[in-house]
Amino acid sequence: MRKTFFDEEIKSWSRFYRGNFVNSLSGFKSVSLIGTVDSDRRSNLAVFSNLVHLGADPALIGFINRPREAAPHTLANIEATSLYTINHITDSMVVQAHQTSAKYEEGVSEFNATGLNEEWIEGVPVPFVKESHVKYLLQLEDVVPIKQNGTFLVIGSLRLAVVPHEIISGDGFLHLEQAGSITSLGIDGYYNTSALGRFSYAKTDRPLTRL
Amino acid sequence: MRKTFFDEEIKSWSRFYRGNFVNSLSGFKSVSLIGTVDSDRRSNLAVFSNLVHLGADPALIGFINRPREAAPHTLANIEATSLYTINHITDSMVVQAHQTSAKYEEGVSEFNATGLNEEWIEGVPVPFVKESHVKYLLQLEDVVPIKQNGTFLVIGSLRLAVVPHEIISGDGFLHLEQAGSITSLGIDGYYNTSALGRFSYAKTDRPLTRL
Repeated sequence: MRKTFFDEEIKSWSRFYRGNFVNSLSGFKSVSLIGTVDSDRRSNLAVFSNLVHLGADPALIGFINRPREAAPHTLANIEATSLYTINHITDSMVVQAHQTSAKYEEGVSEFNATGLNEEWIEGVPVPFVKESHVKYLLQLEDVVPIKQNGTFLVIGSLRLAVVPHEIISGDGFLHLEQAGSITSLGIDGYYNTSALGRFSYAKTDRPLTRL
Repeated sequence: MRKTFFDEEIKSWSRFYRGNFVNSLSGFKSVSLIGTVDSDRRSNLAVFSNLVHLGADPALIGFINRPREAAPHTLANIEATSLYTINHITDSMVVQAHQTSAKYEEGVSEFNATGLNEEWIEGVPVPFVKESHVKYLLQLEDVVPIKQNGTFLVIGSLRLAVVPHEIISGDGFLHLEQAGSITSLGIDGYYNTSALGRFSYAKTDRPLTRL
């Protein structure tokens, strides 16, 4: 039995109920852990779920950062150092990943607080998450303010990627489900995935085929 | 066996291989069909995979539109009429949904071309997808140009949502997996999901509990 909700009703809901509803409505998300350091080289790790693919040439990936007062540390660190790591989450890390969303004080490392381990790659001044199977390094390109609600689209260019060799298809596609990468829903839901399939480049004059 | 790829190598790959790799790297996405009409009220339907939750108060949802020359119709229609529908995809619609990405001429309705059915809600001048179980109406708030690559972040405010009653939790969370909503990966991969769980609001001084 379906229900239709109009904006007057949605606006009348409690902040908590509306937050869960609206945050779920847009669908499954690319949840990942963002690793940074501050200007004193102290590590920080935080879970972010709104990542977007912006383009492959140049390779640009964005994420939405909440207003500065709600989520200050990651964005300040990125602005200070220009570099940040994005680390996929597997089901065995999900409790620790969600725990990074607690409001630890500035200078407290969520690596220490949650028991996730730092991994350092030579020449890279920001930490990766050792437990992550798929991870990459971005360099800050732009912080675009969203004037409607004080959030930001943070845009980075791809500098380095670490991927298990066995999940890379012959055409470059990554079978992330084989690396155990999960997806999220709403504020606090986490999901495994199973492949339905890949389909050929769509043309107007011929049917799709399965890849 | 993991591999580390540096930016010089990634840039050296073919456009096709790099597109698949980079598009997969950022993770699973909120794939949906966007329904619009042009100024002559002709319907258009197109698959988009980069949707983001921007905020719940006001309720704002964004999506990334490719450069105008690559993906002109949906954005032009939204700018002409201000309203657009976002319709979740289930596994039984995935072939038709992917087929909407073919480059049909302006004025050709992807509803007709793919066999998906229009659904009209009284007072709403843009079509929903009848086969979708979860769908919502957005009103254009802003088109933010991304200067690095000519893409756009299109921001809309929530006007209406249609959701099966039985997937709505007591706290507003939507169990989208129970409505059959799928997620996508890369340019052409589609996935079902299965719930790992939901976790309590994280605090620094107490462990998480399962919801």
